[in-house]
Formats: sequence, C-alpha cells, structure tokens
Amino acid sequence: MENMRNTITNALSDFFFEYETPRQVLVRSRRVGVVCRLIQLGVLAYIIGWVFIYEKGYQSTDTAVSSVFTKMKGVGYTNESKVEKVWDVADYVFPPQGDSSFVVMTNYIITEGQSLGSPVICIFSGHMTGVCNATTNTCEVYAWCPVEDDSHIPECPPLLISAENYTLFIKNSVTFPLFGVTRSNLVEGIDAEYISNCLYHPETAPLCPIFSLGDVVKFSGFNFETIAKVGGAIGIVVDWTCNFDFDVRHCKPQYHFHGLYGNPTEMDQARASVGYNFRYARHYFEDGVQKRTLLKVFGIRIDIIVQSLGRKFDVIPTLTAIGSGVGIFGVATVVCDLVLLYVLPKREFYKNMKFKYTDHSQDQVRIVCR
Amino acid sequence: MENMRNTITNALSDFFFEYETPRQVLVRSRRVGVVCRLIQLGVLAYIIGWVFIYEKGYQSTDTAVSSVFTKMKGVGYTNESKVEKVWDVADYVFPPQGDSSFVVMTNYIITEGQSLGSPVICIFSGHMTGVCNATTNTCEVYAWCPVEDDSHIPECPPLLISAENYTLFIKNSVTFPLFGVTRSNLVEGIDAEYISNCLYHPETAPLCPIFSLGDVVKFSGFNFETIAKVGGAIGIVVDWTCNFDFDVRHCKPQYHFHGLYGNPTEMDQARASVGYNFRYARHYFEDGVQKRTLLKVFGIRIDIIVQSLGRKFDVIPTLTAIGSGVGIFGVATVVCDLVLLYVLPKREFYKNMKFKYTDHSQDQVRIVCR
Amino acid sequence: MENMRNTITNALSDFFFEYETPRQVLVRSRRVGVVCRLIQLGVLAYIIGWVFIYEKGYQSTDTAVSSVFTKMKGVGYTNESKVEKVWDVADYVFPPQGDSSFVVMTNYIITEGQSLGSPVICIFSGHMTGVCNATTNTCEVYAWCPVEDDSHIPECPPLLISAENYTLFIKNSVTFPLFGVTRSNLVEGIDAEYISNCLYHPETAPLCPIFSLGDVVKFSGFNFETIAKVGGAIGIVVDWTCNFDFDVRHCKPQYHFHGLYGNPTEMDQARASVGYNFRYARHYFEDGVQKRTLLKVFGIRIDIIVQSLGRKFDVIPTLTAIGSGVGIFGVATVVCDLVLLYVLPKREFYKNMKFKYTDHSQDQVRIVCR
Repeated sequence: MENMRNTITNALSDFFFEYETPRQVLVRSRRVGVVCRLIQLGVLAYIIGWVFIYEKGYQSTDTAVSSVFTKMKGVGYTNESKVEKVWDVADYVFPPQGDSSFVVMTNYIITEGQSLGSPVICIFSGHMTGVCNATTNTCEVYAWCPVEDDSHIPECPPLLISAENYTLFIKNSVTFPLFGVTRSNLVEGIDAEYISNCLYHPETAPLCPIFSLGDVVKFSGFNFETIAKVGGAIGIVVDWTCNFDFDVRHCKPQYHFHGLYGNPTEMDQARASVGYNFRYARHYFEDGVQKRTLLKVFGIRIDIIVQSLGRKFDVIPTLTAIGSGVGIFGVATVVCDLVLLYVLPKREFYKNMKFKYTDHSQDQVRIVCR
Repeated sequence: MENMRNTITNALSDFFFEYETPRQVLVRSRRVGVVCRLIQLGVLAYIIGWVFIYEKGYQSTDTAVSSVFTKMKGVGYTNESKVEKVWDVADYVFPPQGDSSFVVMTNYIITEGQSLGSPVICIFSGHMTGVCNATTNTCEVYAWCPVEDDSHIPECPPLLISAENYTLFIKNSVTFPLFGVTRSNLVEGIDAEYISNCLYHPETAPLCPIFSLGDVVKFSGFNFETIAKVGGAIGIVVDWTCNFDFDVRHCKPQYHFHGLYGNPTEMDQARASVGYNFRYARHYFEDGVQKRTLLKVFGIRIDIIVQSLGRKFDVIPTLTAIGSGVGIFGVATVVCDLVLLYVLPKREFYKNMKFKYTDHSQDQVRIVCR
Repeated sequence: MENMRNTITNALSDFFFEYETPRQVLVRSRRVGVVCRLIQLGVLAYIIGWVFIYEKGYQSTDTAVSSVFTKMKGVGYTNESKVEKVWDVADYVFPPQGDSSFVVMTNYIITEGQSLGSPVICIFSGHMTGVCNATTNTCEVYAWCPVEDDSHIPECPPLLISAENYTLFIKNSVTFPLFGVTRSNLVEGIDAEYISNCLYHPETAPLCPIFSLGDVVKFSGFNFETIAKVGGAIGIVVDWTCNFDFDVRHCKPQYHFHGLYGNPTEMDQARASVGYNFRYARHYFEDGVQKRTLLKVFGIRIDIIVQSLGRKFDVIPTLTAIGSGVGIFGVATVVCDLVLLYVLPKREFYKNMKFKYTDHSQDQVRIVCR
C-alpha cells in the first residue's frame, strides 16, 4: 500500500518535474540553411499571409436565414383601340401580397367573356369530343369559348412605357443564427425621410431600397421593350457579405442584378424558353351563366435572392489553422532532411550526426563520441 | 540484375525492420517541468474540453432542405354600420393555398364598385390627363373611380378581436441530405388525436404545431391591437438543432417568435416602414361594365423560417481536430524550448544538451560526453 | 552601435546558415519496425485514400442560391350530373404565376352562390348569434349560406383521370457564389427542339425538364387515385451535386421524388394530417348582392426543392488536410514510442538510447557511451 502510494507519487513528480525536448543537430551549412529557412519562411508566409490575412482562416462562417417583402408602386395607362385603361398595383402585380418572387405584368392577351358553350372547332387545346375532320385537320373540342388566340403577341405592348417608371421597394431582414446578429436592409441612416425621396443607383445611392423597374431591367442587361413584350426573369441578389469582427454597422447589403437564364448579351438564342408568361382567369357570373376573363400575362418575373456570408473570429478555426500550419512546417522539415541526408555531398556525415543505431550502438556511439 | 534486386530487398527490409524515434533530453527541472506540463495540459484540456466536448469538433455539420405548409382556422365577424359580415379562411388568408409566407388580414379599407369612368379630380395617383389647376394644386386624372380614401385607417379595426382567436397549423418537413435523415414536426407522440386538442405553449405544449394568432403576436412582443390596425411582420422560426449521434427521435423542433423588423421593445420609432399592407382587387362585371372592389389590406404577415443545424460524428473532422491538436502541442513544445534555451539561468547547459553542432562536432560531443 | 549591428548580423547569419534537425535513434527491431511501419502506412492510406480521394478533402464546398419557375400544361374534363366542364391551367393551378411551390387541383367540393343571408342553423363554423338549442345540440350561426357540406369527399373525383396526363415544366437556375458558376437545368443539348418532344424518364430521359404528373406521383410511391381524391404533398428534389474540378458541363441536375410527410409505403397510418386541401373563394355580385363561390380544393401540392453541393479544389482545405495528417502521423509515432519504451523486453535499453538525462547526465552518458 505504502509502496504503491510511493510509486504513484514518484510517477507524478517525474511527470511534473521532468520535461523532454528533442535533441537536435545544428547543421552549419550555408546551402542547407538557406534552402530550409526559405522553405520554412514560405510556409510561414503562407500560413500568416494567405490562410490568416487573405482567406481569414481565423474566422468561422455562417449563412443567414432571411425574409423579404416587396412593394411595387406606380400606375400604368393603356389606350387600346380608343379604350382607355388604368392599371394600378392591384391589377399588375401577381401575387398581390408582396412576396419575394412576383411578376409585374407588362403585356397581355385578354379573352373576355369566355363560357363553357357548345363544342367549337379547334386544332388542339381542349377536350376532344371525338368529332374530327380529316380534311381540314381539325377536331371539335369542348372548351372555354371564345378560344384564346395567342398566335400574335401585341407588338405595341400597352403597358410597356409606363411600367418602366414603376418603383419597387424591397424590405429584407437577415439573421445570422451562429453570431446572433439580425440586420435589415434599412440600415442606419436609411430612415423614412431618406426613403421617401431616394432611388437606387449603384454609385450615388447604393443603399436606397427603392428601385425603378426600368433600372432593374437595364442593370441586368436587358432591353426593356423586348422583355416587356415577351416577358423575362430577373434576379435581384441582395448580397450580405459581412465581417462581424468589425462593428455590425459595417454590415450593409449590396444589390446585384442579372437575368436568371443567362444574361442577354451572352444568351444563346437557340436556347429553349426565353420569355415569361402564365395564364390567369377571373371568374364571374353573367345572367346566371359562369363566365371568365382569361388573361395570358407576359411580365417581368422578379426573384429577390438573398445571398449571405457572415464571418467572425472563432477560436476553433484559428487553432485548427495554426495546428495544421505546424503540421505543414513538419513537412518542410522532412523535405529539408531528405535534402540533407540524400542529396548533399556530406550526407553520410550528416546521417551519422542525426541517427544512432541500436544494433550497432557500440560502434555508432563510438563514432559519434570518438 | 541480381544486384539491383538485392538493393531493393535491402531497402525494403531496412524500411520495414527499422524504426526511427527522436532522441530527447529529459530535463529534470521543477521550474521547466511544471511550466511545460501546465502548458501541455492546457492544450490538452482545450482540445478535449473545448474542441471535442463543448464545440463537438468530432462532428460534421449540415443544414436541411425543408418544406412548409400552413393552415389557418377560425371565423371572423364584423359589424360595420349595422352591416354584419362573416370572414372565413377563404376571405382573410392571402394566398389561400397554405404557403410558408402568408398574410392574415386584420383590417382593411374597402372601396366598392370602382369603374374606369370619366376623369376625376385628384392630387396624385393615376394617369395625368394634363388638365391641371394651379390654384387648387390639383390635376384631373384618369383613374378607377371612386378613388380610394386611405387617409384614415379604421380605428376600431373590424376584424381585430376575432383574429386573435384564429389558429395556425404548421406542417414542416426537413431533410438533412448529408445524413439521410428526414423529420417532420409531427414527431413521435404528436398524432391526430393530440393535434385535435392541443394549443402551442412554450412550456406546457412546446411540440404542438397549432398556434393561436394572439399568442404568436404576444410571444413576439407586439401589442395585438396595434399590429392588427396597421399590420406587421412576424417570423416564426422553426429551429431544428439536432445531434444525430443520439437517436433520431431526440431531433425535435423548437419554435421562436420575433418581429421581422426589430422587436417592438427595441424598435426605433423613427425607423422607416412599420406596418404591413397591400392592395388587392376583385374584378367583376355589372351591367356589362367592368368594375372592381379594391381592398387595402392591413394584416399580419407571417413568415415561417426554418433554421436547421444537424451534427453527426464524422471521421474527417475528428482526425482533423486531433491532427491540428497535435500541431498545437508542437507549438507548446516550442514555447517551452524557448523558455529552456533563452530564459533559464542554466540555458547554456541545456543548449549543449539539446544541440549538437556539425562544424564543432568534436568539441561539442566531447563536452556532452565529458 | 557597431557592436549591435554585428550582433544582429550574426544572429541573422546564424538563422539563415544554420539548420536544426532532430537527432533520432534508428531502432533495428523487426517487431517494432513492422508494427510502426504498418501504423504509419495505415495513417498514410487514411490521409491519401480516405481524406483525399474518397472524401475529396482537398476541395472546398459551397451551396447554391437558386430560383425556380414552373409551368403546368394540360386540360381537364369533368362530367358531373351531365354538366360538362373543362379545366385548364388558369383554373387548376394555385397560384397561377408559376411558383416553385404550387397546388394542382384534383378534386373539389364546390358551394355556389353563397351569400351573407339570415342566420342559419349549424353545429359549428361561423359566428354564434347566441341562439342555441340544447335539445338538438345546434346553434344559430351567422355565416355564408348555403353552408358548405364537406362531410363527404367525392368518391369519383371528377378531375382525377385527366390530371394524370398534365405535364409540368421546371426551369431552375442555380448560382454557386463561391465558385462564380451559374447553371440552368436546361443544360447543353436540352434545347427548344428537344424540350418540345421529351418527357422525363429516370433512365431514358433523365435530363428532360418536363414531367408527367402521373409519373411524379408514381415515382414518389403514391397511388394516383388516392392522392387525387384527398390530396397530398410531393417534393421534387433537384439535386445539383457538382465537382467543379471537371468541366462545368458535367454539372447536371438529378431529379428525385418523394412524399413530403413520409413515403406512403412506410407511412404510419395513425399519423396525423395526410391529405392536402384548402379553401378558396371567388367573389362576385349578383343583383347588387355580394356572393361567392366557395371551393374546397383537394390537390397535389408540389414543392420544388433545390439541393446543391458544389466542390472545387482549394489550397486551404488541402493544406489543412495535409497539416493535420502530419499531426496524426505524430500520434502514430507517440503510439510506437509507447510500445518501444513500455512494452518491449529491451525497453530499458531503448529508453537509454532515446533519452539523455540532465541531472544524471554524466552517468547516463557514461552508460550510453560505455
């Protein structure tokens, strides 16, 4: 018992009062020295310069969860065959409630007063009643009549000119859960007064959350007249690249604009599916008969895409970077040793200096200690 | 040939039957020993305690892809100037199909029977016909008439009281692709019978997926009457922080509630854009004339935000953590060596013990082996 | 001054022209040699084989931001009690504008001509007027009349058979911000001509972006008749797992289909909330009275879920993997040393070879150099 306690005490005191450090050979050789130091300095420069300063390897990263609301403003005006019409937000935005992805109608084919009447003669689109005419290559179909004629997209799109002046207000809130930071795109200084007057411009007003639809189309490289006629899809990227080692006030959004299916300049014209349209029906009763107004809506689909990358100092990546940097240092030493032991003319001498052999220990040590 | 084979065999047998291990100096010094051991124990405690146990550095992480469905229930009742009205889900939820982001109408300004009539006199909002009156500062505009008067938000919001009792059912499914795990918020024990009776409460029923709208508003710190009048945006965060080293049954969602543009307590009143509203039109025909009912809808916009972080044991991060931990150990050794060789009084002695110099090898070894 | 400059010059020349390398004992022992070499080879095989080749530890990873548009095509036909009806996209898709999450109506309960009339007698659902009848357990409620009767879901769902042939066109664009790569699911070779003829099939046409609704239901394991009757939720996962070390043309999407609340085969029938439905109202005026058509819509909710993982060679993870691999190598050495110094019979001899003791240095060295 006494004995055992002594053993443990001794082992503990040995452990705490002893310290082992590797024995080393100090090779005084200009060639080896310079080569190895340069390798080591290179590794050090990589670790400090690249991993730490350039890539900020001492930081952990996180992406944000976000929510987006939008609000369009502006009034459109059309004058089709002497029928004046006014289009406001309730008429041209789908869906109306301000989603992050919505369509601004810029052109349309309207088919009014459709009803489910008697069979009509059609080439396709509808339920076949079975009565077909092989000569004219047509069939009788049961469908909503009159049938929509979308063979011709209006060339002078009625809503075109006014839609360019509509404005879009984006409200975006992001939360980085790892860092516990919540930010809104209405950052410091972007108050109600500023918003009431501003209009986004990449240089003069990069933080204004109000965008002219014409600008959005222009910034993404499209021609407004073309996109308004056949429709198109535009992504507005709200980019939150934030370094939370600095004050949170420096975390501000950046806005980018691009076509969602290839930018128009590089767009392969042979690619399928340019344009954007969908059909939409308004049902009503007239004299007890169910009728509907069918709208083929061409429009600019806008997707607000929130892209986020938060960074902040964290102990784990820092020490992982340092620790693996030390490992790389070890690789540098191995390379230098290979040079020392296999390349240099005096390699045999260095080998003897570095190694002691157990099975010829007497001799080796004799040589070393001669 | 024979010779070469011999050489290779020798090299291989040398490689396999030899093992090199660094020679070390065992410094028996209380000061150095204690300091170095403490540094090493500190590093060990950091690696085991922090990296492994606290930060779970042996796990890889993944975020989930998710889908969310919602369903509101409840009936509202209004009595405006003796006109009784009943509002059910089909009337007060936008959009109706149960999206993860939707608006519950709580107040509205209704403008019935609008038609595109003859020019009216207005201050703004509409297409200018060009006839302006400089004296009264008004212009004739062509617009939907009668023009909406939204200067005054109804003070006694009609839907207010009943909306508080609406319930919201959230169905949420998450998939962690890296771990091949799919979970639903209807976890074990949350069956049809339980759902038919339960109501979410943070303490007594934290897993019940049915929420009272009044509670949601309260939990996020708002006053129901205020938010119901002017509208507001609330995020319901479904938080899936799961450790898949335990049984998948322990992976359960947590619900958090917060205002999406600053919590009301800390809300800077000067900030732009509190409130939430949008315009919505119902088109119809009356006596062959296209008319519409315009609704300016004030409501509570609810965004279901799924936040997820799955963790599971993985070999790579484990060995990366161990490997870089060993590297940090190496740093500890370097620090101890610096103390040993540059700080301690007997540093010259230790230097001689540790280093052997190639160009004075005779002398050095003589000293060491004296 | 001169002195100091000399000192610095000397220190620098010492630093650059000297190189220290650890002294090592070369243990010539078959047992130790084989064991240690195997451990080291195992570590090397792990680092190269697993971390680098299998897990591609030399790559950094990124997830994409994406946008999705959808377009349904197809016409439905119903014949309820001799009333023929035709359903086109504008009638059966909610919402109409082509969102990534939408509902295809496959069954419905229609309640036409509801108005806010005089109180009706009802069991629940509506605002209580307070007049209740304890005998029949009913109350008078103020509600939209006639009240919807949804006790019975139509058994022969009218839209069922035709919905199976509807087609869904998915347009999906993904951007990997870290790698600056944007891809669309209309990859090379998927041009307008191909799209006009193709239909997705997992083997014969895995890249065709047009899906038959019947196939989607079948691939996710459901029975079309069941899901069409009560509704259901299906996720279409667009999986972008891309290795950008190869040409970007190899980055192609894969489509997977699964039920969002448990696959039907493994579905616990006792689980709450199978089926999918929502209520939807069309408001209109008839003879000056506001009326509405209430639709309880049963349908297939389709969520397009984009899942992405991009990988590309990166210096940081490569060097981190190498560095921590070197660390693991260090651990292997420690294990071998423990065997050498505490397990082997000649352990005392090896200990003497490896260690030099400072306080008994004379003796120890005497032993070593005996």
